[in-house]
Amino acid sequence: MLNHLASIVAFADTATAWPLAVRGACEADAVSESALIRRSGWFWDFIAGRKPAPAAAATLGWELSWIAPERGEIEVFFDASEKFVNPMGNIQGGFLAAMLDDTFGPALVATLGDGESAPTLELKVNFLRPAAPGRLVCTGRVVHRGGSIAFLAGELRNETGDLLATATATARIIRPTK
Amino acid sequence: MLNHLASIVAFADTATAWPLAVRGACEADAVSESALIRRSGWFWDFIAGRKPAPAAAATLGWELSWIAPERGEIEVFFDASEKFVNPMGNIQGGFLAAMLDDTFGPALVATLGDGESAPTLELKVNFLRPAAPGRLVCTGRVVHRGGSIAFLAGELRNETGDLLATATATARIIRPTK
Repeated sequence: MLNHLASIVAFADTATAWPLAVRGACEADAVSESALIRRSGWFWDFIAGRKPAPAAAATLGWELSWIAPERGEIEVFFDASEKFVNPMGNIQGGFLAAMLDDTFGPALVATLGDGESAPTLELKVNFLRPAAPGRLVCTGRVVHRGGSIAFLAGELRNETGDLLATATATARIIRPTK
Repeated sequence: MLNHLASIVAFADTATAWPLAVRGACEADAVSESALIRRSGWFWDFIAGRKPAPAAAATLGWELSWIAPERGEIEVFFDASEKFVNPMGNIQGGFLAAMLDDTFGPALVATLGDGESAPTLELKVNFLRPAAPGRLVCTGRVVHRGGSIAFLAGELRNETGDLLATATATARIIRPTK
């Protein structure tokens, strides 16, 4: 059932679990299946293997590294495909934007309640270095979450740690009508 | 040879041709093959059919509607694939960003000289409406081009004309070292 959990190295479901929310290969045992089952919504259904990956995530080669939902932090791996390159052979910037959006977006979505959604209103990306095809690593965080608006930020790096792009975004939190 | 030209409805290669740079199905005869052959660089090589589409453009279903290079204006069709949708069934915002970047980017690149390139430094996108999968239409323009920096803007619409997203960007013009 938890077919996406092998790569989760920490799962900060409670305040006491927060120190585990750092990257490391040996913390998978900290993940609690019962904690997942308590949560619902597309993100947790996907993480728990109850639903397939969203198409956009699958296209980008989305793979969870770790998530600390109470802190609003996440790290995601991406497969920057040869299909995304520009004429210079680098990943076209929009696809890097898509990866950043698909990192801090889920960091926010993981904090939502049943029926809530959080479309991105605006996205600003700075491109620092060319990105070659291959595995990329993106960290994202919820900088501030108000009642109906959230501010998000993220950084995208290659596997050697070079910072390739940074982004900030504003999202609107939509609650189900009663 | 000019296998990409069937969809070009205007080609403002000279000042007198500028009035043709409006959308319309009957202006294809205004395109001059000799004018294309005079231009070089990846964009014109692609447009003239001398090189295949860049991978990112092919992934996005990029198809030129028209271009007015001396005005720095362009219109491009995209195929917003089901592969780009988020859990709500709409096109994930990053892919819309990729389309906008792959519209005003070529509008600038079409103005460059041999060996010049113009990587995007920063990109800001506003998401106005959800975008369903299907054919989208994006217009882009070079707002201002200085010696080494250019400011770009674009608008993305669905086929019924609803404005889905707008973007601005800053690009750096890099000249070949002598």
